[in-house]
Amino acid sequence: MAPPQEIPTIYTLEDIESVVSDPQFAVELIDAIQEGFVAYSKGNFNAAPIQTLGAPPMAPFVNVDNYSAQTCVKSGYITGGDHYVTKIASGGNPHPNSGLMQLYSQKTGKFEMLLLDDGLLTELRTAAVGSVAARMLAPDLSDEAACIGVLGTGVQARYQLQYLAHVTGCRNVRVWGRTEKNTVQFIKDMEAEGWNVTPVESSQHLLQPPTNDWYCPLIVTTTSSRVPLLKLDGSKLSKRPLHITCIGSDSTGKLELDPKLVAAADLLVADSRIQTQERGEFEDAIKQGLVSLESITELGELVLEKKSWRSNDDNDARFTVFDSSGVAVQDCIIASMFALRASK
Amino acid sequence: MAPPQEIPTIYTLEDIESVVSDPQFAVELIDAIQEGFVAYSKGNFNAAPIQTLGAPPMAPFVNVDNYSAQTCVKSGYITGGDHYVTKIASGGNPHPNSGLMQLYSQKTGKFEMLLLDDGLLTELRTAAVGSVAARMLAPDLSDEAACIGVLGTGVQARYQLQYLAHVTGCRNVRVWGRTEKNTVQFIKDMEAEGWNVTPVESSQHLLQPPTNDWYCPLIVTTTSSRVPLLKLDGSKLSKRPLHITCIGSDSTGKLELDPKLVAAADLLVADSRIQTQERGEFEDAIKQGLVSLESITELGELVLEKKSWRSNDDNDARFTVFDSSGVAVQDCIIASMFALRASK
Repeated sequence: MAPPQEIPTIYTLEDIESVVSDPQFAVELIDAIQEGFVAYSKGNFNAAPIQTLGAPPMAPFVNVDNYSAQTCVKSGYITGGDHYVTKIASGGNPHPNSGLMQLYSQKTGKFEMLLLDDGLLTELRTAAVGSVAARMLAPDLSDEAACIGVLGTGVQARYQLQYLAHVTGCRNVRVWGRTEKNTVQFIKDMEAEGWNVTPVESSQHLLQPPTNDWYCPLIVTTTSSRVPLLKLDGSKLSKRPLHITCIGSDSTGKLELDPKLVAAADLLVADSRIQTQERGEFEDAIKQGLVSLESITELGELVLEKKSWRSNDDNDARFTVFDSSGVAVQDCIIASMFALRASK
Repeated sequence: MAPPQEIPTIYTLEDIESVVSDPQFAVELIDAIQEGFVAYSKGNFNAAPIQTLGAPPMAPFVNVDNYSAQTCVKSGYITGGDHYVTKIASGGNPHPNSGLMQLYSQKTGKFEMLLLDDGLLTELRTAAVGSVAARMLAPDLSDEAACIGVLGTGVQARYQLQYLAHVTGCRNVRVWGRTEKNTVQFIKDMEAEGWNVTPVESSQHLLQPPTNDWYCPLIVTTTSSRVPLLKLDGSKLSKRPLHITCIGSDSTGKLELDPKLVAAADLLVADSRIQTQERGEFEDAIKQGLVSLESITELGELVLEKKSWRSNDDNDARFTVFDSSGVAVQDCIIASMFALRASK
């Protein structure tokens, strides 16, 4: 008789939440994501071409107008790693699946785990890269007037702060949101988590030069805006310590920073150099010839160069931008890390 | 409080076997696969580019030599259909997963079913296309001397006969297998299922001209041979009713028919014309210039042309070849049909 068939272990969103809510998970994830980007920049991540179902040249799904529902199938693995991971995410239909992940063993081929995370793991791996970038690039935040500027009040804005709490002691936040109602709710929720949050009148206020009252040496942008929310005021940015992490723009047409502001940076860092040409915050600046692709450093390359890019006061007065458009190595890392913890 | 998360229904191999063992499943599957090929030939099947993990230009999986383990991710859907289907199959490692299928709703995006069929559904959809081809192309098998010739004694050879039982009353089989042990076992097993099975001395014997004793108007080839097992004896095939369904060759380098025998056919039919250039039984004949791509008819086109290609005695004396290299529309059809039956 054949042995009983091995069934992959299924983790529901509730199961997954109970594992990832441990603060130690966040701490370890930040380190693991950093190492993942080193692997990526070294060419040690293998990404299959993305399958996009319900998109041209294929037919739209049944009962949807004009390709309004689509599904992406992303698969990849780290050379020499334990697993390969497939992520399937759909949107635009009545029952969106914001992402589920499947973990298979490279060694044995076994389908080990089905993670029904509904996009939670994608949110967290994105939050984690924000903390990697802040650890590498953010100026000193120990000044009492120093604040973390946040553009947007959605789910990712919250996770960014939750993860930043592991890499900085700063708890002052200035926030700008499109609607007052959501901004008020964001402030209430984040204050309950120990942050001191103050709204600003306009997104542009986050760029105000340092005063004794407040200034933002670190800004995180998390909106899905299609118009620039942060602009260069004048022909160049006045000298001040500033790092901006751009999370929101992840596809053509979305942007949060004016391309001229991008071009004014002393250092541009991206998760994936090749991807930055076609999506994300640097796309327009490149297309307008304000920035060359070669001038962009990958996060993994920066890690390999030195542990902290800001090493002295002079460097601290520089202006840096990190753009995350999301790469599959992050999915592979977080799924593998989850697997390790869940099977303990 | 959020409503409880919907979890896909999981079907184990045992669950699946209990559904597909119903003879009515085979009968309906043959019809459904035929309609699937019509959709395919009309351009109504949407196949995403196949992801092949563990294959160049990607790195080999950990702990395997020279790309010996790989995984294919195939996704697709019929325009206007209920579902989209992803099939993940791996091989070459200690825990091969010969195929699992995932069924998602096009309408809602919901992950409805995970079918842990371990390749069984792939075997059956392949068996079903053999029966579609036989129903369309096989000569009259009602003569007492008429036999079904079978090359190979493996799993697919058995399924081919099980499915052919639904489209022909002929129960006489001549079989050739590489090893005596497997051939003896095949005969024993198939006799128990009601077939009269006789071994032949060499594969070439299956092509012997009609005698009062026996002959094979229908031959099914199911081996993974890399050398031709059926050859042209002389410069052309002597006139006789003959159809060959080629199942075994599904990748470059595999072949069971001598390209000259392929070129001698009156009609060549393939599941996918475009695929026939790069894999399957016609590949070498095309590359050697013996057969033009344009001369090959797709199975779906043949269905659209007429219900039975052999309509009179004259047509019955023709020689036809059908080559199956496998297309994803078959996976989509069988998974959807399974879903319909399982949820009844």
